[in-house]
Amino acid sequence: MSLSKPIGIFDSGLGGLTVARAIASRLPDESIYYVGDTKRCPYGTRPQAEVRLFVRQVGHWLERHDVKLVVIACNTATAAGLDVIQRTLSVPVIGVIEPGARAAIQATRSRRVGVLATQGTVDSGAYERAIHNLDAGVHVTQAPAGSFVDLVERELASGTYLHDDWMENPEVFDTAEVRELAQRNVAPLMGHGVDTVVLGCTHFPLLAREISAALGPGVRTVSSAEETAREVAEILERRGELAGPDTADLGAGGEPKYRFATTSDDITSFAVAGKFIFGHPLDSIEHIELETLEALAAR
Amino acid sequence: MSLSKPIGIFDSGLGGLTVARAIASRLPDESIYYVGDTKRCPYGTRPQAEVRLFVRQVGHWLERHDVKLVVIACNTATAAGLDVIQRTLSVPVIGVIEPGARAAIQATRSRRVGVLATQGTVDSGAYERAIHNLDAGVHVTQAPAGSFVDLVERELASGTYLHDDWMENPEVFDTAEVRELAQRNVAPLMGHGVDTVVLGCTHFPLLAREISAALGPGVRTVSSAEETAREVAEILERRGELAGPDTADLGAGGEPKYRFATTSDDITSFAVAGKFIFGHPLDSIEHIELETLEALAAR
Repeated sequence: MSLSKPIGIFDSGLGGLTVARAIASRLPDESIYYVGDTKRCPYGTRPQAEVRLFVRQVGHWLERHDVKLVVIACNTATAAGLDVIQRTLSVPVIGVIEPGARAAIQATRSRRVGVLATQGTVDSGAYERAIHNLDAGVHVTQAPAGSFVDLVERELASGTYLHDDWMENPEVFDTAEVRELAQRNVAPLMGHGVDTVVLGCTHFPLLAREISAALGPGVRTVSSAEETAREVAEILERRGELAGPDTADLGAGGEPKYRFATTSDDITSFAVAGKFIFGHPLDSIEHIELETLEALAAR
Repeated sequence: MSLSKPIGIFDSGLGGLTVARAIASRLPDESIYYVGDTKRCPYGTRPQAEVRLFVRQVGHWLERHDVKLVVIACNTATAAGLDVIQRTLSVPVIGVIEPGARAAIQATRSRRVGVLATQGTVDSGAYERAIHNLDAGVHVTQAPAGSFVDLVERELASGTYLHDDWMENPEVFDTAEVRELAQRNVAPLMGHGVDTVVLGCTHFPLLAREISAALGPGVRTVSSAEETAREVAEILERRGELAGPDTADLGAGGEPKYRFATTSDDITSFAVAGKFIFGHPLDSIEHIELETLEALAAR
Protein backbone atom coordinates (compact mmCIF):
# COMPACT_ATOMS: atom_id res chain seq x y z
CA MET A 1 0.00 0.00 0.00
CA SER A 2 1.10 3.51 -0.64
CA LEU A 3 -0.23 4.97 2.61
CA SER A 4 3.13 4.70 4.33
CA LYS A 5 5.20 5.91 1.38
CA PRO A 6 6.70 9.36 1.86
CA ILE A 7 5.64 12.54 0.10
CA GLY A 8 8.53 13.67 -2.11
CA ILE A 9 9.31 17.37 -2.00
CA PHE A 10 12.00 19.20 -3.85
CA ASP A 11 13.49 22.62 -4.21
CA SER A 12 16.70 24.08 -5.53
CA GLY A 13 17.72 24.64 -1.93
CA LEU A 14 16.22 25.37 1.47
CA GLY A 15 13.25 27.61 0.64
CA GLY A 16 11.04 24.61 -0.10
CA LEU A 17 11.30 23.69 3.57
CA THR A 18 8.54 26.26 4.18
CA VAL A 19 6.34 24.02 2.03
CA ALA A 20 7.60 20.88 3.81
CA ARG A 21 6.82 22.55 7.12
CA ALA A 22 3.28 23.44 6.03
CA ILE A 23 2.73 19.84 4.86
CA ALA A 24 4.16 18.35 8.06
CA SER A 25 1.98 20.67 10.10
CA ARG A 26 -1.23 19.89 8.20
CA LEU A 27 -0.52 16.17 7.83
CA PRO A 28 1.45 15.16 10.91
CA ASP A 29 1.23 11.42 10.14
CA GLU A 30 2.86 11.68 6.72
CA SER A 31 6.49 10.86 6.03
CA ILE A 32 8.47 13.29 3.91
CA TYR A 33 11.49 12.86 1.67
CA TYR A 34 12.94 16.26 0.86
CA VAL A 35 15.61 16.94 -1.78
CA GLY A 36 17.40 20.28 -1.89
CA ASP A 37 19.51 20.63 -5.03
CA THR A 38 21.70 23.00 -3.04
CA LYS A 39 24.78 22.42 -5.17
CA ARG A 40 23.12 24.12 -8.14
CA CYS A 41 21.08 26.68 -6.19
CA PRO A 42 19.70 29.15 -7.19
CA TYR A 43 17.75 27.97 -10.23
CA GLY A 44 16.33 31.46 -10.89
CA THR A 45 19.30 32.73 -12.89
CA ARG A 46 19.59 29.67 -15.16
CA PRO A 47 18.02 29.09 -18.58
CA GLN A 48 14.60 27.40 -18.49
CA ALA A 49 15.85 24.44 -20.54
CA GLU A 50 18.52 23.71 -17.95
CA VAL A 51 16.03 23.95 -15.08
CA ARG A 52 13.76 21.51 -16.91
CA LEU A 53 16.59 18.97 -16.95
CA PHE A 54 17.22 19.49 -13.23
CA VAL A 55 13.52 18.99 -12.51
CA ARG A 56 13.59 15.72 -14.44
CA GLN A 57 16.70 14.57 -12.59
CA VAL A 58 15.30 15.21 -9.15
CA GLY A 59 11.85 13.97 -10.12
CA HIS A 60 13.25 10.63 -11.31
CA TRP A 61 15.36 10.34 -8.18
CA LEU A 62 12.28 10.79 -6.01
CA GLU A 63 10.28 8.31 -8.04
CA ARG A 64 13.05 5.72 -7.68
CA HIS A 65 12.85 6.32 -3.94
CA ASP A 66 9.24 5.31 -3.98
CA VAL A 67 7.36 8.44 -2.99
CA LYS A 68 3.59 8.51 -3.41
CA LEU A 69 3.39 12.11 -4.65
CA VAL A 70 5.91 14.72 -5.77
CA VAL A 71 5.70 18.39 -4.81
CA ILE A 72 7.88 20.86 -6.70
CA ALA A 73 8.34 23.29 -3.84
CA CYS A 74 9.99 25.95 -5.96
CA ASN A 75 8.31 28.54 -8.13
CA THR A 76 11.09 28.68 -10.71
CA ALA A 77 11.14 24.90 -11.12
CA THR A 78 7.35 24.75 -11.27
CA ALA A 79 7.21 27.38 -13.98
CA ALA A 80 9.96 25.69 -15.99
CA GLY A 81 9.37 22.00 -15.52
CA LEU A 82 6.03 21.01 -14.00
CA ASP A 83 4.48 19.90 -17.30
CA VAL A 84 7.55 17.87 -18.32
CA ILE A 85 7.75 15.96 -15.09
CA GLN A 86 3.99 15.38 -14.96
CA ARG A 87 4.32 13.70 -18.35
CA THR A 88 7.19 11.45 -17.30
CA LEU A 89 6.48 10.30 -13.74
CA SER A 90 3.90 7.68 -12.83
CA VAL A 91 2.95 9.39 -9.54
CA PRO A 92 1.08 12.70 -9.37
CA VAL A 93 3.20 15.85 -9.39
CA ILE A 94 2.02 19.23 -8.20
CA GLY A 95 3.71 22.60 -8.14
CA VAL A 96 3.34 25.60 -5.88
CA ILE A 97 1.92 28.05 -8.41
CA GLU A 98 -1.58 26.73 -9.11
CA PRO A 99 -2.58 26.25 -5.45
CA GLY A 100 -1.60 29.82 -4.60
CA ALA A 101 -3.27 31.22 -7.71
CA ARG A 102 -6.47 29.35 -6.94
CA ALA A 103 -6.61 30.49 -3.33
CA ALA A 104 -6.09 34.11 -4.35
CA ILE A 105 -8.94 33.97 -6.87
CA GLN A 106 -11.25 32.46 -4.28
CA ALA A 107 -10.33 35.08 -1.70
CA THR A 108 -10.33 38.34 -3.64
CA ARG A 109 -13.38 40.59 -3.45
CA SER A 110 -11.95 43.41 -5.52
CA ARG A 111 -11.02 40.84 -8.20
CA ARG A 112 -7.55 42.37 -8.15
CA VAL A 113 -4.73 40.13 -7.07
CA GLY A 114 -1.09 40.98 -6.46
CA VAL A 115 1.81 38.57 -6.89
CA LEU A 116 5.12 38.98 -5.08
CA ALA A 117 7.76 36.73 -6.64
CA THR A 118 11.30 36.63 -7.92
CA GLN A 119 12.06 38.41 -11.19
CA GLY A 120 12.29 35.03 -12.95
CA THR A 121 8.85 33.93 -11.79
CA VAL A 122 7.37 37.32 -12.67
CA ASP A 123 8.93 37.16 -16.14
CA SER A 124 7.69 33.60 -16.72
CA GLY A 125 4.09 34.86 -16.45
CA ALA A 126 3.22 31.58 -14.73
CA TYR A 127 1.02 33.14 -12.03
CA GLU A 128 -0.86 35.28 -14.52
CA ARG A 129 -1.51 32.21 -16.68
CA ALA A 130 -2.59 30.08 -13.73
CA ILE A 131 -4.92 32.83 -12.49
CA HIS A 132 -6.44 33.51 -15.89
CA ASN A 133 -6.92 29.81 -16.65
CA LEU A 134 -9.20 29.72 -13.63
CA ASP A 135 -10.72 33.19 -13.74
CA ALA A 136 -10.34 35.35 -16.81
CA GLY A 137 -11.80 38.32 -14.94
CA VAL A 138 -9.23 38.69 -12.18
CA HIS A 139 -6.74 41.50 -12.70
CA VAL A 140 -3.14 40.63 -11.81
CA THR A 141 -0.41 43.05 -10.70
CA GLN A 142 3.03 41.57 -10.18
CA ALA A 143 5.97 42.90 -8.21
CA PRO A 144 9.47 41.41 -8.34
CA ALA A 145 10.79 40.94 -4.83
CA GLY A 146 13.93 38.89 -5.27
CA SER A 147 15.70 41.08 -2.71
CA PHE A 148 13.68 39.26 -0.04
CA VAL A 149 15.47 36.08 -1.08
CA ASP A 150 18.85 37.79 -0.91
CA LEU A 151 18.00 39.05 2.55
CA VAL A 152 16.85 35.66 3.85
CA GLU A 153 19.82 33.87 2.29
CA ARG A 154 22.26 36.40 3.74
CA GLU A 155 20.78 36.06 7.19
CA LEU A 156 20.71 32.27 6.93
CA ALA A 157 24.37 32.31 5.93
CA SER A 158 25.34 34.74 8.69
CA GLY A 159 23.60 32.68 11.32
CA THR A 160 22.57 35.85 13.16
CA TYR A 161 18.94 34.84 13.46
CA LEU A 162 19.50 31.16 13.85
CA HIS A 163 18.98 31.12 17.57
CA ASP A 164 15.60 29.52 17.24
CA ASP A 165 12.50 28.72 15.20
CA TRP A 166 11.25 31.77 13.37
CA MET A 167 7.62 30.81 13.98
CA GLU A 168 8.30 31.07 17.70
CA ASN A 169 10.19 34.31 17.24
CA PRO A 170 8.15 36.54 15.00
CA GLU A 171 10.45 39.46 15.79
CA VAL A 172 13.35 37.73 14.06
CA PHE A 173 13.04 39.76 10.90
CA ASP A 174 11.38 42.74 12.51
CA THR A 175 14.15 45.25 11.87
CA ALA A 176 14.13 48.71 10.33
CA GLU A 177 16.01 47.36 7.30
CA VAL A 178 13.45 44.62 6.66
CA ARG A 179 10.50 46.96 7.17
CA GLU A 180 11.99 49.41 4.70
CA LEU A 181 12.71 46.65 2.15
CA ALA A 182 9.16 45.32 2.51
CA GLN A 183 7.71 48.79 1.90
CA ARG A 184 9.82 49.15 -1.22
CA ASN A 185 9.00 45.69 -2.58
CA VAL A 186 5.24 45.98 -2.15
CA ALA A 187 5.09 49.54 -3.52
CA PRO A 188 4.24 48.43 -7.11
CA LEU A 189 1.14 46.64 -5.74
CA MET A 190 -0.25 49.70 -3.95
CA GLY A 191 -2.91 51.91 -5.51
CA HIS A 192 -4.25 49.17 -7.80
CA GLY A 193 -7.14 48.07 -5.61
CA VAL A 194 -5.37 44.79 -4.86
CA ASP A 195 -6.93 43.11 -1.80
CA THR A 196 -5.12 39.75 -1.98
CA VAL A 197 -1.41 39.12 -2.51
CA VAL A 198 0.19 35.77 -3.30
CA LEU A 199 3.54 35.12 -1.64
CA GLY A 200 4.90 33.56 -4.80
CA CYS A 201 8.30 32.41 -3.56
CA THR A 202 9.06 29.76 -0.99
CA HIS A 203 11.29 32.12 0.98
CA PHE A 204 8.54 34.66 1.52
CA PRO A 205 6.56 32.90 4.27
CA LEU A 206 9.62 33.65 6.44
CA LEU A 207 8.81 37.33 6.01
CA ALA A 208 5.03 37.01 6.02
CA ARG A 209 4.53 39.31 8.99
CA GLU A 210 6.70 42.06 7.59
CA ILE A 211 5.11 41.80 4.14
CA SER A 212 1.61 41.91 5.67
CA ALA A 213 2.53 44.93 7.74
CA ALA A 214 3.83 46.72 4.64
CA LEU A 215 0.68 45.90 2.66
CA GLY A 216 -1.47 47.32 5.43
CA PRO A 217 -4.79 46.18 6.90
CA GLY A 218 -7.31 45.61 4.01
CA VAL A 219 -4.93 43.28 2.13
CA ARG A 220 -4.68 39.58 2.80
CA THR A 221 -1.71 37.43 1.90
CA VAL A 222 -1.94 33.92 0.48
CA SER A 223 0.93 31.56 1.21
CA SER A 224 1.72 29.20 -1.65
CA ALA A 225 3.22 26.90 0.96
CA GLU A 226 0.00 26.64 2.97
CA GLU A 227 -2.13 26.26 -0.13
CA THR A 228 0.12 23.57 -1.55
CA ALA A 229 -0.15 21.66 1.73
CA ARG A 230 -3.92 21.92 1.47
CA GLU A 231 -3.80 20.57 -2.07
CA VAL A 232 -1.58 17.67 -0.99
CA ALA A 233 -4.09 16.80 1.74
CA GLU A 234 -6.97 16.93 -0.73
CA ILE A 235 -5.21 14.69 -3.26
CA LEU A 236 -4.17 12.07 -0.72
CA GLU A 237 -7.61 12.07 0.84
CA ARG A 238 -9.29 11.67 -2.54
CA ARG A 239 -6.97 8.78 -3.42
CA GLY A 240 -7.38 7.07 -0.05
CA GLU A 241 -3.65 7.48 0.51
CA LEU A 242 -3.61 9.56 3.67
CA ALA A 243 -1.37 8.14 6.35
CA GLY A 244 -3.06 7.72 9.71
CA PRO A 245 -1.55 7.48 13.19
CA ASP A 246 -1.22 3.70 12.68
CA THR A 247 0.37 3.90 9.26
CA ALA A 248 3.80 4.98 10.46
CA ASP A 249 4.44 1.43 11.66
CA LEU A 250 3.81 0.09 8.18
CA GLY A 251 6.92 1.80 6.81
CA ALA A 252 10.18 -0.04 6.32
CA GLY A 253 10.96 -0.40 10.02
CA GLY A 254 13.11 2.16 11.70
CA GLU A 255 13.20 4.73 8.92
CA PRO A 256 13.03 8.31 10.10
CA LYS A 257 9.79 10.07 9.30
CA TYR A 258 11.48 13.11 7.79
CA ARG A 259 14.45 12.49 5.54
CA PHE A 260 16.44 15.22 3.84
CA ALA A 261 18.87 14.94 0.97
CA THR A 262 21.18 17.56 -0.48
CA THR A 263 23.30 17.54 -3.59
CA SER A 264 25.86 19.72 -1.85
CA ASP A 265 28.69 18.35 0.29
CA ASP A 266 27.96 20.80 3.05
CA ILE A 267 25.49 18.94 5.22
CA THR A 268 26.17 21.15 8.22
CA SER A 269 24.91 24.39 6.64
CA PHE A 270 21.86 22.54 5.40
CA ALA A 271 21.19 21.25 8.92
CA VAL A 272 21.65 24.59 10.66
CA ALA A 273 19.63 26.78 8.30
CA GLY A 274 17.16 23.97 7.61
CA LYS A 275 16.20 23.63 11.26
CA PHE A 276 15.38 27.34 11.31
CA ILE A 277 13.04 27.02 8.32
CA PHE A 278 11.56 23.59 8.98
CA GLY A 279 11.06 24.41 12.65
CA HIS A 280 12.34 21.03 13.74
CA PRO A 281 15.84 19.54 13.81
CA LEU A 282 16.73 17.77 10.56
CA ASP A 283 17.71 14.47 12.12
CA SER A 284 18.41 12.62 8.90
CA ILE A 285 20.37 14.38 6.18
CA GLU A 286 22.32 12.62 3.47
CA HIS A 287 24.42 13.76 0.57
CA ILE A 288 23.16 12.38 -2.76
CA GLU A 289 24.41 12.23 -6.33
CA LEU A 290 21.76 12.60 -9.00
CA GLU A 291 21.78 10.61 -12.21
CA THR A 292 24.01 12.43 -14.70
CA LEU A 293 22.40 14.52 -17.40
CA GLU A 294 23.90 12.12 -19.97
CA ALA A 295 22.18 9.14 -18.35
CA LEU A 296 18.98 11.13 -18.19
CA ALA A 297 19.24 12.08 -21.84
CA ALA A 298 19.69 8.41 -22.75
CA ARG A 299 16.34 7.45 -21.21
CA MET B 1 -23.39 41.82 4.11
CA SER B 2 -23.43 39.25 1.39
CA LEU B 3 -23.93 36.25 3.67
CA SER B 4 -27.67 36.21 3.09
CA LYS B 5 -27.53 36.88 -0.65
CA PRO B 6 -28.45 33.91 -2.81
CA ILE B 7 -26.10 31.84 -4.93
CA GLY B 8 -27.05 32.37 -8.57
CA ILE B 9 -27.15 29.24 -10.72
CA PHE B 10 -28.02 28.97 -14.34
CA ASP B 11 -28.50 26.42 -17.03
CA SER B 12 -30.14 26.29 -20.41
CA GLY B 13 -32.90 24.25 -18.81
CA LEU B 14 -33.46 21.76 -16.03
CA GLY B 15 -30.21 19.76 -16.01
CA GLY B 16 -28.48 22.34 -13.85
CA LEU B 17 -30.88 21.43 -11.06
CA THR B 18 -28.56 18.49 -10.33
CA VAL B 19 -25.93 21.11 -9.50
CA ALA B 20 -28.44 23.17 -7.50
CA ARG B 21 -29.38 20.02 -5.61
CA ALA B 22 -25.76 19.21 -4.80
CA ILE B 23 -25.23 22.80 -3.58
CA ALA B 24 -28.41 22.78 -1.48
CA SER B 25 -27.39 19.45 0.01
CA ARG B 26 -23.84 20.53 0.87
CA LEU B 27 -24.80 24.03 2.01
CA PRO B 28 -28.30 23.75 3.50
CA ASP B 29 -28.29 27.30 4.88
CA GLU B 30 -27.67 28.98 1.53
CA SER B 31 -30.37 30.59 -0.58
CA ILE B 32 -30.41 29.81 -4.30
CA TYR B 33 -31.71 31.74 -7.27
CA TYR B 34 -31.89 29.41 -10.27
CA VAL B 35 -32.48 30.50 -13.85
CA GLY B 36 -33.35 27.94 -16.54
CA ASP B 37 -33.26 29.47 -20.01
CA THR B 38 -35.78 26.83 -21.00
CA LYS B 39 -37.20 28.83 -23.88
CA ARG B 40 -33.92 28.51 -25.80
CA CYS B 41 -32.94 25.04 -24.54
CA PRO B 42 -30.87 23.16 -25.63
CA TYR B 43 -27.77 25.34 -26.07
CA GLY B 44 -25.71 22.42 -27.40
CA THR B 45 -26.80 22.75 -31.01
CA ARG B 46 -26.25 26.51 -31.24
CA PRO B 47 -23.15 28.40 -32.42
CA GLN B 48 -20.69 29.28 -29.65
CA ALA B 49 -21.04 33.02 -30.33
CA GLU B 50 -24.77 32.83 -29.70
CA VAL B 51 -24.30 30.86 -26.48
CA ARG B 52 -21.82 33.48 -25.29
CA LEU B 53 -24.51 36.14 -25.69
CA PHE B 54 -27.00 34.02 -23.76
CA VAL B 55 -24.47 33.53 -20.97
CA ARG B 56 -23.98 37.29 -20.77
CA GLN B 57 -27.73 37.88 -20.68
CA VAL B 58 -28.40 35.46 -17.86
CA GLY B 59 -25.23 36.46 -16.01
CA HIS B 60 -26.26 40.13 -16.02
CA TRP B 61 -29.76 39.22 -14.95
CA LEU B 62 -28.40 37.32 -11.95
CA GLU B 63 -26.02 40.12 -11.04
CA ARG B 64 -28.90 42.61 -11.09
CA HIS B 65 -30.73 40.27 -8.73
CA ASP B 66 -27.91 40.61 -6.26
CA VAL B 67 -26.45 37.12 -6.04
CA LYS B 68 -23.13 36.66 -4.25
CA LEU B 69 -21.70 34.12 -6.69
CA VAL B 70 -22.71 32.80 -10.12
CA VAL B 71 -22.48 29.13 -11.10
CA ILE B 72 -22.82 28.25 -14.77
CA ALA B 73 -24.40 24.86 -14.24
CA CYS B 74 -24.14 23.82 -17.87
CA ASN B 75 -21.15 22.37 -19.64
CA THR B 76 -21.96 23.92 -23.02
CA ALA B 77 -22.38 27.38 -21.51
CA THR B 78 -19.23 26.98 -19.43
CA ALA B 79 -17.18 25.99 -22.46
CA ALA B 80 -18.58 28.85 -24.55
CA GLY B 81 -18.95 31.73 -22.14
CA LEU B 82 -17.22 31.32 -18.78
CA ASP B 83 -14.31 33.61 -19.62
CA VAL B 84 -16.55 36.34 -21.06
CA ILE B 85 -18.81 36.48 -18.06
CA GLN B 86 -15.91 36.31 -15.61
CA ARG B 87 -14.57 39.44 -17.28
CA THR B 88 -17.85 41.34 -17.10
CA LEU B 89 -19.44 40.52 -13.73
CA SER B 90 -18.25 41.94 -10.42
CA VAL B 91 -19.05 38.74 -8.48
CA PRO B 92 -17.09 35.50 -8.90
CA VAL B 93 -18.30 33.12 -11.61
CA ILE B 94 -17.46 29.44 -11.75
CA GLY B 95 -18.34 26.78 -14.26
CA VAL B 96 -18.82 23.03 -13.95
CA ILE B 97 -15.86 21.92 -16.05
CA GLU B 98 -12.84 22.85 -13.95
CA PRO B 99 -14.12 21.36 -10.66
CA GLY B 100 -14.84 18.02 -12.35
CA ALA B 101 -11.52 18.02 -14.20
CA ARG B 102 -9.64 18.77 -11.00
CA ALA B 103 -11.36 16.03 -9.01
CA ALA B 104 -10.64 13.48 -11.73
CA ILE B 105 -6.94 14.36 -11.79
CA GLN B 106 -6.73 14.05 -8.03
CA ALA B 107 -8.51 10.70 -8.03
CA THR B 108 -6.92 8.81 -10.92
CA ARG B 109 -4.19 6.30 -10.15
CA SER B 110 -3.74 5.07 -13.70
CA ARG B 111 -3.42 8.72 -14.81
CA ARG B 112 -6.02 7.92 -17.46
CA VAL B 113 -9.28 9.79 -17.21
CA GLY B 114 -12.45 9.35 -19.24
CA VAL B 115 -14.96 12.09 -19.99
CA LEU B 116 -18.61 11.40 -20.81
CA ALA B 117 -20.23 14.50 -22.26
CA THR B 118 -22.42 15.77 -25.05
CA GLN B 119 -20.95 15.92 -28.55
CA GLY B 120 -20.68 19.71 -28.26
CA THR B 121 -18.71 19.56 -25.03
CA VAL B 122 -16.46 16.83 -26.41
CA ASP B 123 -15.82 18.87 -29.56
CA SER B 124 -15.06 22.02 -27.56
CA GLY B 125 -12.08 20.23 -25.99
CA ALA B 126 -12.86 22.10 -22.76
CA TYR B 127 -12.31 19.12 -20.46
CA GLU B 128 -9.06 18.16 -22.11
CA ARG B 129 -7.80 21.75 -21.75
CA ALA B 130 -8.91 22.00 -18.12
CA ILE B 131 -7.27 18.67 -17.30
CA HIS B 132 -4.01 19.45 -19.07
CA ASN B 133 -3.79 22.94 -17.56
CA LEU B 134 -3.64 21.21 -14.19
CA ASP B 135 -1.78 18.03 -15.09
CA ALA B 136 -0.04 17.68 -18.40
CA GLY B 137 0.58 14.00 -17.75
CA VAL B 138 -2.99 12.75 -17.49
CA HIS B 139 -4.29 10.98 -20.57
CA VAL B 140 -7.86 11.87 -21.55
CA THR B 141 -10.31 9.69 -23.48
CA GLN B 142 -13.64 11.26 -24.34
CA ALA B 143 -16.92 9.64 -25.27
CA PRO B 144 -19.93 11.54 -26.59
CA ALA B 145 -23.05 10.49 -24.73
CA GLY B 146 -25.69 12.96 -25.80
CA SER B 147 -28.20 10.13 -26.10
CA PHE B 148 -28.34 10.11 -22.28
CA VAL B 149 -29.72 13.65 -22.47
CA ASP B 150 -32.30 12.61 -25.06
CA LEU B 151 -33.35 9.74 -22.84
CA VAL B 152 -33.67 11.86 -19.70
CA GLU B 153 -35.51 14.62 -21.56
CA ARG B 154 -37.90 12.13 -23.14
CA GLU B 155 -38.68 10.55 -19.81
CA LEU B 156 -39.07 13.91 -18.12
CA ALA B 157 -41.47 14.95 -20.87
CA SER B 158 -43.44 11.69 -20.71
CA GLY B 159 -43.79 11.93 -16.96
CA THR B 160 -43.50 8.16 -16.65
CA TYR B 161 -40.86 8.29 -13.98
CA LEU B 162 -42.07 11.40 -12.26
CA HIS B 163 -43.69 9.57 -9.39
CA ASP B 164 -41.04 10.60 -6.97
CA ASP B 165 -37.53 11.77 -6.24
CA TRP B 166 -34.99 9.81 -8.27
CA MET B 167 -32.49 9.77 -5.42
CA GLU B 168 -35.02 7.88 -3.35
CA ASN B 169 -35.84 5.57 -6.21
CA PRO B 170 -32.60 4.35 -7.68
CA GLU B 171 -34.48 1.85 -9.81
CA VAL B 172 -36.16 4.65 -11.76
CA PHE B 173 -33.85 4.34 -14.74
CA ASP B 174 -32.92 0.72 -14.15
CA THR B 175 -34.42 -0.69 -17.33
CA ALA B 176 -32.99 -2.93 -20.01
CA GLU B 177 -33.04 -0.03 -22.46
CA VAL B 178 -31.03 2.25 -20.17
CA ARG B 179 -28.55 -0.50 -19.31
CA GLU B 180 -28.01 -1.19 -22.97
CA LEU B 181 -27.60 2.52 -23.78
CA ALA B 182 -25.12 2.93 -20.93
CA GLN B 183 -23.06 -0.01 -22.21
CA ARG B 184 -22.97 1.52 -25.67
CA ASN B 185 -22.09 5.02 -24.47
CA VAL B 186 -19.22 3.97 -22.23
CA ALA B 187 -17.77 1.53 -24.77
CA PRO B 188 -15.25 4.07 -26.20
CA LEU B 189 -13.77 4.46 -22.70
CA MET B 190 -13.16 0.75 -22.17
CA GLY B 191 -9.77 -0.84 -22.81
CA HIS B 192 -7.82 2.42 -22.30
CA GLY B 193 -6.86 1.85 -18.67
CA VAL B 194 -9.24 4.61 -17.58
CA ASP B 195 -9.95 4.35 -13.84
CA THR B 196 -11.85 7.62 -13.36
CA VAL B 197 -14.69 9.00 -15.48
CA VAL B 198 -16.08 12.53 -15.31
CA LEU B 199 -19.84 12.82 -15.74
CA GLY B 200 -19.44 15.91 -17.90
CA CYS B 201 -23.08 16.84 -18.39
CA THR B 202 -25.55 18.05 -15.79
CA HIS B 203 -28.10 15.41 -16.83
CA PHE B 204 -25.76 12.51 -16.15
CA PRO B 205 -25.96 12.40 -12.34
CA LEU B 206 -29.54 11.20 -12.93
CA LEU B 207 -28.04 8.10 -14.54
CA ALA B 208 -25.01 7.78 -12.28
CA ARG B 209 -25.91 4.29 -11.09
CA GLU B 210 -26.46 2.93 -14.56
CA ILE B 211 -23.28 4.56 -15.88
CA SER B 212 -21.25 3.17 -12.96
CA ALA B 213 -22.68 -0.29 -13.52
CA ALA B 214 -21.73 -0.14 -17.19
CA LEU B 215 -18.19 1.02 -16.37
CA GLY B 216 -17.72 -1.87 -13.97
CA PRO B 217 -16.07 -2.11 -10.55
CA GLY B 218 -12.51 -0.69 -10.95
CA VAL B 219 -13.74 2.63 -12.37
CA ARG B 220 -14.91 5.55 -10.28
CA THR B 221 -17.17 8.32 -11.52
CA VAL B 222 -16.74 11.98 -10.68
CA SER B 223 -19.86 14.13 -10.65
CA SER B 224 -19.28 17.66 -11.90
CA ALA B 225 -22.34 18.64 -9.87
CA GLU B 226 -20.86 17.39 -6.58
CA GLU B 227 -17.47 18.87 -7.32
CA THR B 228 -18.93 22.23 -8.25
CA ALA B 229 -20.84 22.26 -4.96
CA ARG B 230 -17.59 21.55 -3.17
CA GLU B 231 -15.92 24.45 -5.00
CA VAL B 232 -18.79 26.79 -4.10
CA ALA B 233 -18.40 25.84 -0.43
CA GLU B 234 -14.66 26.45 -0.58
CA ILE B 235 -15.04 29.87 -2.22
CA LEU B 236 -17.72 31.09 0.18
CA GLU B 237 -15.78 29.81 3.17
CA ARG B 238 -12.59 31.49 1.99
CA ARG B 239 -14.46 34.78 1.48
CA GLY B 240 -16.26 34.59 4.82
CA GLU B 241 -19.56 34.56 2.92
CA LEU B 242 -21.01 31.25 4.06
CA ALA B 243 -24.56 31.55 5.31
CA GLY B 244 -25.11 30.04 8.75
CA PRO B 245 -28.32 28.82 10.38
CA ASP B 246 -28.90 32.38 11.66
CA THR B 247 -28.28 34.12 8.37
CA ALA B 248 -31.57 33.18 6.75
CA ASP B 249 -33.29 35.78 8.92
CA LEU B 250 -31.06 38.50 7.52
CA GLY B 251 -32.56 38.15 4.05
CA ALA B 252 -35.27 40.46 2.77
CA GLY B 253 -38.02 39.11 5.04
CA GLY B 254 -40.31 36.44 3.73
CA GLU B 255 -38.40 35.57 0.58
CA PRO B 256 -38.35 31.90 -0.24
CA LYS B 257 -34.99 30.23 0.18
CA TYR B 258 -35.06 28.59 -3.23
CA ARG B 259 -36.33 30.67 -6.14
CA PHE B 260 -36.57 29.43 -9.69
CA ALA B 261 -36.98 31.43 -12.85
CA THR B 262 -37.65 30.23 -16.37
CA THR B 263 -37.64 32.07 -19.66
CA SER B 264 -40.36 29.74 -20.95
CA ASP B 265 -44.07 30.36 -20.43
CA ASP B 266 -44.63 26.79 -19.32
CA ILE B 267 -44.12 26.98 -15.59
CA THR B 268 -45.99 23.74 -14.99
CA SER B 269 -43.57 21.49 -16.89
CA PHE B 270 -40.69 23.22 -15.14
CA ALA B 271 -42.32 22.55 -11.77
CA VAL B 272 -43.12 18.91 -12.45
CA ALA B 273 -39.81 17.83 -13.96
CA GLY B 274 -37.87 20.20 -11.71
CA LYS B 275 -39.16 18.59 -8.54
CA PHE B 276 -37.94 15.24 -9.80
CA ILE B 277 -34.42 16.56 -10.37
CA PHE B 278 -34.12 18.99 -7.47
CA GLY B 279 -35.63 16.43 -5.10
CA HIS B 280 -37.82 19.04 -3.45
CA PRO B 281 -40.95 20.84 -4.66
CA LEU B 282 -40.15 24.07 -6.51
CA ASP B 283 -42.34 26.35 -4.43
CA SER B 284 -41.41 29.59 -6.10
CA ILE B 285 -41.21 29.66 -9.89
CA GLU B 286 -41.56 32.80 -11.98
CA HIS B 287 -41.48 33.53 -15.67
CA ILE B 288 -38.81 36.10 -16.57
CA GLU B 289 -37.86 38.12 -19.63
CA LEU B 290 -34.15 38.66 -20.12
CA GLU B 291 -32.70 41.92 -21.36
CA THR B 292 -32.82 41.90 -25.17
CA LEU B 293 -29.67 41.12 -27.11
CA GLU B 294 -29.83 44.67 -28.52
CA ALA B 295 -29.82 46.20 -25.05
CA LEU B 296 -26.98 43.88 -24.09
CA ALA B 297 -24.98 44.87 -27.16
CA ALA B 298 -25.45 48.54 -26.27
CA ARG B 299 -23.74 48.12 -22.91
